[in-house]
Amino acid sequence: MAQAVELTGQKCVACRADSPRVTEEQIASFHPQVSDWELLNDNGVMKLRRVYRFKDFAGALAFTNRIGEIAEDEGHHPLISTEWGRATVWWWSHKIKGLHVNDFIMAAKTDGLFE
Amino acid sequence: MAQAVELTGQKCVACRADSPRVTEEQIASFHPQVSDWELLNDNGVMKLRRVYRFKDFAGALAFTNRIGEIAEDEGHHPLISTEWGRATVWWWSHKIKGLHVNDFIMAAKTDGLFE
Repeated sequence: MAQAVELTGQKCVACRADSPRVTEEQIASFHPQVSDWELLNDNGVMKLRRVYRFKDFAGALAFTNRIGEIAEDEGHHPLISTEWGRATVWWWSHKIKGLHVNDFIMAAKTDGLFE
Repeated sequence: MAQAVELTGQKCVACRADSPRVTEEQIASFHPQVSDWELLNDNGVMKLRRVYRFKDFAGALAFTNRIGEIAEDEGHHPLISTEWGRATVWWWSHKIKGLHVNDFIMAAKTDGLFE
């Protein structure tokens, strides 16, 4: 039986405008590993979104900064909405206007920062 | 002739659920001082929003952190969407579901961080 590819531990690969979006089969394999993330269609662009809760603004901002560090390390950047008690993180790939495997990798890494 | 109250240099005052929202007259006085901010109605809640541009993600995140510092100093916190090349800042007062003079003060202070 084929093993599901584990997202944690993987590195982002270069994403170009002609890189493939994730397939339905890949989504079926990856999404259970980042099950707290919602798959959302934002005006035709598929994105991953998760809301993380904190006890204040400073906690949310500290988490935002931790995400910033892995984003720089991997060369792939999210949108993060930081507010009192909450950080909402969106991952998607601008170049392909949708989801690349990189986004699932980064979602898993983001979860790893929170746990 | 009455002088317009200058926003920069003012401190936030305590905002409670029964604190007054800004009046039309106050908006007319304050908005020209923060003219790069849009007044937006977000599902019935008036908010101030400005998009700041940067050359990369790190620049946007550094600005987000500078805003975080003044937010802690003043005890009033915005929503900041941080992404590659852009930080979008929203100021409003949750407790009164709208705009308090504090929000205009903080918009002016945010502009001061950028200039």
